[in-house]
Amino acid sequence: MTEKLVLHEYALSGNCYKVRLTAALLGLPLERREYDIAKGETRTPEFLTKVNPNGRIPVLQVGERFIPESDAAIFFLADGSELIPDDRFERADMLRWMFFEQYNHEPNIATLRFWIAFLGTSQLSDEQRALLPAKKAAGEAALKLMDEHLERRSFFVGERLSLADIALYAYTHVAEEGGFDLAGLPHVGAWLERVANSPRHIPITA
Amino acid sequence: MTEKLVLHEYALSGNCYKVRLTAALLGLPLERREYDIAKGETRTPEFLTKVNPNGRIPVLQVGERFIPESDAAIFFLADGSELIPDDRFERADMLRWMFFEQYNHEPNIATLRFWIAFLGTSQLSDEQRALLPAKKAAGEAALKLMDEHLERRSFFVGERLSLADIALYAYTHVAEEGGFDLAGLPHVGAWLERVANSPRHIPITA
Repeated sequence: MTEKLVLHEYALSGNCYKVRLTAALLGLPLERREYDIAKGETRTPEFLTKVNPNGRIPVLQVGERFIPESDAAIFFLADGSELIPDDRFERADMLRWMFFEQYNHEPNIATLRFWIAFLGTSQLSDEQRALLPAKKAAGEAALKLMDEHLERRSFFVGERLSLADIALYAYTHVAEEGGFDLAGLPHVGAWLERVANSPRHIPITA
Repeated sequence: MTEKLVLHEYALSGNCYKVRLTAALLGLPLERREYDIAKGETRTPEFLTKVNPNGRIPVLQVGERFIPESDAAIFFLADGSELIPDDRFERADMLRWMFFEQYNHEPNIATLRFWIAFLGTSQLSDEQRALLPAKKAAGEAALKLMDEHLERRSFFVGERLSLADIALYAYTHVAEEGGFDLAGLPHVGAWLERVANSPRHIPITA
């Protein structure tokens, strides 16, 4: 990697943590620039024009170019490395879990963590409050599906750590902050420990 | 591709159309198996055990193995082809648009199409009805972002057709069925024609 890598982020976001964790596992240096999303710092005209027209973090800056979307950013970092399977089927299967994460997992588990642990339930709008039961149920279904998949596996794809694990680890390991109970999911619990014990692993607070 | 390819699908779904369109553009033969989602045919114990524990279509069957998630399935089909850029940055940028599609586009534009054109507004639950304004606004924002991106570009990434275009074309070209107005989006309109005129293109009804 000859171009400088800069992560535009809000450090407590699991999506941003994915990028830091992938860079750490690969030994890649990463500069960091923090934005206060509560103050609208990712919605300024400059951010929307230069960094991400979608007004969201993380964004990985590669030289003077920008990659929004956490799972695209970690694919860029890991392209050609052992974190992406060589096998064609396994490579697609890895992406299958990454798309599952963004469609079935993150909108429920990350959103409830943000609403409950960051905003606080007393600050929620009526619309957000009405969505709580559906998001809780959908998040629990995603976690249960993961637990069943891991019953006879060490990692999500190909029996070794890949981007699928990193994408799903980011918000699963802090799911209890959003009110999810992991106690009844022993295979998820064992997998979380396995990921946390990987060489060069860093915590979300690093 | 030596293994037989079978698409488990509901043909009118844009997510399923992505897989058929990618196979057609690449000249790959694809068997098809139709499920009536209104009758719960993707929620049977057999489907959940064998095809997809998430109970959703499309699923691409490769020999005796299965790939859920439309954007993972088209990545599998196109891996190594001209529909995925050779360049590392462009490959990640393609995935950026595919994750944008599944997070910001599909949950709004595809969902409103399903609710309005397939279920019918009179059949919606109170919860669904309450979500209509937010999903309309979020879908319009996604389309506007696309239009601005296409203002100075022919395709989403690298000035040639890629999976990013296929993923976004699937529900954009039928967005009006969900109540979205494409008339004020000239660059989206020109791009839709460009994709439709690609060699070996097939319509969603094929």
